[in-house]
Parts: sequence; structure tokens; C-alpha cells
Amino acid sequence: MYRSVRAAALSIKPKKWDKAANADKLETFVRQAAAQGAELVVAPEGFLEGYVVMDVIEDPDRRADMWEIAEPPDGPCLQRFSNLARELRIVLCFGYAERRDDGVYNAAIIFGPEGEHCGTYYKTQLAEGSCDDWDFNRLGAELQAIDTPLARVGTMICNDRWNPLIARAQVMDGAQAILIPSYGSRSREQNLAVIARARENGVPVVEANVGVNLIVSKGEVAAYVWGTDRISVATIEIPLPPSEVNAHAVAQEFMDWRGPEMQRRYERTMERVDG
Amino acid sequence: MYRSVRAAALSIKPKKWDKAANADKLETFVRQAAAQGAELVVAPEGFLEGYVVMDVIEDPDRRADMWEIAEPPDGPCLQRFSNLARELRIVLCFGYAERRDDGVYNAAIIFGPEGEHCGTYYKTQLAEGSCDDWDFNRLGAELQAIDTPLARVGTMICNDRWNPLIARAQVMDGAQAILIPSYGSRSREQNLAVIARARENGVPVVEANVGVNLIVSKGEVAAYVWGTDRISVATIEIPLPPSEVNAHAVAQEFMDWRGPEMQRRYERTMERVDG
Repeated sequence: MYRSVRAAALSIKPKKWDKAANADKLETFVRQAAAQGAELVVAPEGFLEGYVVMDVIEDPDRRADMWEIAEPPDGPCLQRFSNLARELRIVLCFGYAERRDDGVYNAAIIFGPEGEHCGTYYKTQLAEGSCDDWDFNRLGAELQAIDTPLARVGTMICNDRWNPLIARAQVMDGAQAILIPSYGSRSREQNLAVIARARENGVPVVEANVGVNLIVSKGEVAAYVWGTDRISVATIEIPLPPSEVNAHAVAQEFMDWRGPEMQRRYERTMERVDG
Repeated sequence: MYRSVRAAALSIKPKKWDKAANADKLETFVRQAAAQGAELVVAPEGFLEGYVVMDVIEDPDRRADMWEIAEPPDGPCLQRFSNLARELRIVLCFGYAERRDDGVYNAAIIFGPEGEHCGTYYKTQLAEGSCDDWDFNRLGAELQAIDTPLARVGTMICNDRWNPLIARAQVMDGAQAILIPSYGSRSREQNLAVIARARENGVPVVEANVGVNLIVSKGEVAAYVWGTDRISVATIEIPLPPSEVNAHAVAQEFMDWRGPEMQRRYERTMERVDG
């Protein structure tokens, strides 16, 4: 017993430091995915500003630029995509740099089909590491799962996907699916890490990675496409929680099938024996 | 967050119609598995009587023999293995023909480490089919999961493993692992069916099949050995249910690791940037 959801991953590549162009591109691709039937759409990490953190680390003069381009939680660009999610009646997840009081965070936001803010996840495991001085690249502090109308979901951003504990904590918090906005890597190891997160947790995963989309359902690859600016749509099967009602419904489906099937098998067996 | 359990699968081959010899063989192999550290031991389908149902279908004169050799629920042979499970402090599952008031069933019993009867599962999907007249080969009517001290488990007997609904109903009933006593088939398709049951349900599977053992944990093959009379021991990771306590425990484990790790990554990044 599962909930079937049409999910889309977008391998779209943003332009560095060009938020206006990136927002337009995101809207274009999200509309295309929805037109293909997607109820859930995931776009890459750092999409609005173009994932510029290494520029800032390499050139401290750009810290001010990062603060400028980072979107505040109530910013107009987020409002635009809340409106888009409502218009298209989808769950939408994408990554961007978010400016909060104490610094800039690598964030992934989730909007629901009413345009509601389901939740925001902040990347907790940074490939580049962190230090207190890096107020332009703060570490997320929480691993909570987020409720959406389609499922309670865990979110991992790019480097997070290498760590089984990050996914597991969210699954222990009730996540029934994992969304992964990423920025790059088409290695075999990245594929295996994503598949492993799905298998070890028994949940589907939708990864939108600049250069590759990977969707896993029931522990098997449901979509896998290389290349930038690709839309991958696949059905994911979201496991429902154990319950008496769900157990009975599945058992009844089996019993309905079994009656005529066992009769057919009996007849075949007797033909073989008597023949 | 998982419960790690050492599980053994026994590919032992019984002799047809020789219950005394089979019981002795079962005891010998169960003792060996326990000596190798197994806390959970699974043996094949129909082991006590030697899986003789086709003999009876082909020769109706043998119906009386089946009734004779089938073990009643309170029979001495079952008592012997209850005692053995208690002596070895293991959970033990194996298959046999069980004689009940209305007929003989293809059964798998589970004893716990106190010798307690955790439950008995009756095969629900028969390769040979069924008809009302076959009182020597009744169909099981229930798909309930069974509580053991190691985990709540689903049980499937041989042909059952081909049907996703049988496993799913038990997982919806709370099963955290699946045990599969089987009699034969070393086909690629049988392997894929067993792996699929593990992946689509997010639970480990321990299959003891005459001719092959297959243990799957976290959706990956943990043990796979061809040949009869083999003992396979592997650690299976049994998923714990979502809860606030479990979510916090995993998150804390991640946070303990992250502090020094992010500092190390920061230092490497700055060496690279400054170098």
C-alpha cells in the first residue's frame, strides 16, 4: 500500500549571480514539469543566486554581494514561487541562499499547492566545511522532517546525501520520502549514495542535480537522465504507515485475487498429473 | 537507527517422509548456526516431513501418510524445537506440514528464546493451487505479522515470495523483517523477487531455501550462497519505528560527528584557497 505521486526532477543550471534570470528559468521549467503531470517538482541547490559560495570563499570582497543576493524568508522571489505553486497546485522544492539575522544559509524551501510554506531545510553538512567567521555560509541546525500534503518528507542538500545519519534522522522523524536539491556530480558514487539512502530507509528519493536527475522508488531507479536543463518525471510510491486499516486493505486485495487464481493453478496441476 | 541482529539461513535438504532423520538434521544445523553467533535462525519449507505434497497429489493413496506424518500444533517434534530455541536462546523459524482439525497446512512456526511460541504462519499462495477436496494442503487465511523478541516479523513460505501483496500486508501490520522458508529454485528470478520484497518494503529478508540462502539488509545482499546444507550468517539491520526519541538519537549522533568534521573541512578548504 503506497501513495502514488508523479514527481519531477529538474537538472536545470543557473547563472552565477543572476537571480532575475534564474528565477525566470526556474518558473519556465516548473511550468513545463507541471504540464507533464508532475504533482511534486524538485529543482537544484542554490538555484536563485547560482550557487556562488566558492566565489565568496575565494574572494572575501564578495561577502557583501552574497548578503545582497541572498533572499530573505519573506522576500519577493520566494513569494513569486509560492504563487506559482498555488497556481499549478503542486508541491515545489528548490534551493537558494537565504539571508537570516545571523547569516546566510544554504536553504531548500518547500511550498504546497495552496502556496503555503510547508517548511525550509538548511544544509547541515557542507563540503567546504564551516567556521564561525563565515556568516555567509551558516550550518543548518535541525534535521526535522517537513509535512506536505503529498507526504511528510526529509530534505537533503547536495553534500548531505553522503551521510546516512542525515536521512535516517528525518525518516525517524516520520519522513516518507526524501528530496535532494544538489549542485553537481554525475559520478557513479553519487548515484550509489542516492540509491543507498532510498534502500536503507525504504523511501523514494527525488534528486534534482545540475547535470543529472535521479528518482528512486521502491529501492529501484525510476528515472535517471544526464545533462543539464532536463526534466525527469516518474511515479514514486510513497509508503503509507502501518495500520490496521492499511493491513486489511492489502490483505483483502490479495484475497480477491487468490480465489480464482488458486482454482486456475489447481486445474493446471491436475491436467499435468492426470495427463 | 536500526537494531542489528545476527541472522542465519540454512539451505538444508530434508529426506522425503523421514521425519525422525529430518528433525535430527535440523537440530544439528541449528546448533551450528547458534554456535556461529546467530540470534535468529531460519530453515526451509516443509522440513520435518520433507515437502511431500506433490507425492500426495500424484498418489491419492498417500493422503493417509500425509495425515500421519503431519505434526499437530502440540506435537512432540515441535516441543523438541521449542526446547532447543530456549536452550540456545534464539528465535527459530522452520517449515513443516501441520495437522489441524480441518486439514493439513503448509506451516512455518516461530519459537522465541524462552521457548515461547511466537506464532505460526500458514502458506497462503500455493504453486499447485488448491481445492476444497485437498484437505492435505489447506490454504492459510491470515497475513498477520508475528511478534518476536527481536522484531515483529512477516513470514512468507516459498511461492508466497512472488506476491508483493503478501509481504506488504504484513509490513502494513507492523512487520520490520521478513522470513522466507522455501523449498527450491535458484533462479535469477527468485533472487530478484526476494530482493524486491526487501526493497519495496524497506525491511531485511532472511530466506532459507533448499539449494540457496539469501539474506538482504538495507536493500542490499548481505549473504548469498548456493548449495544444500549450507549455513549463512549475516547481520541484518532491522528498522526501528519513527519516534521523537529515535529521531533525536540519530540527530545527536550526527551532531557529535559534525563539529570536528566541519572544522577539518574548513581547514582543507582554506589551505586550497590560500595555496
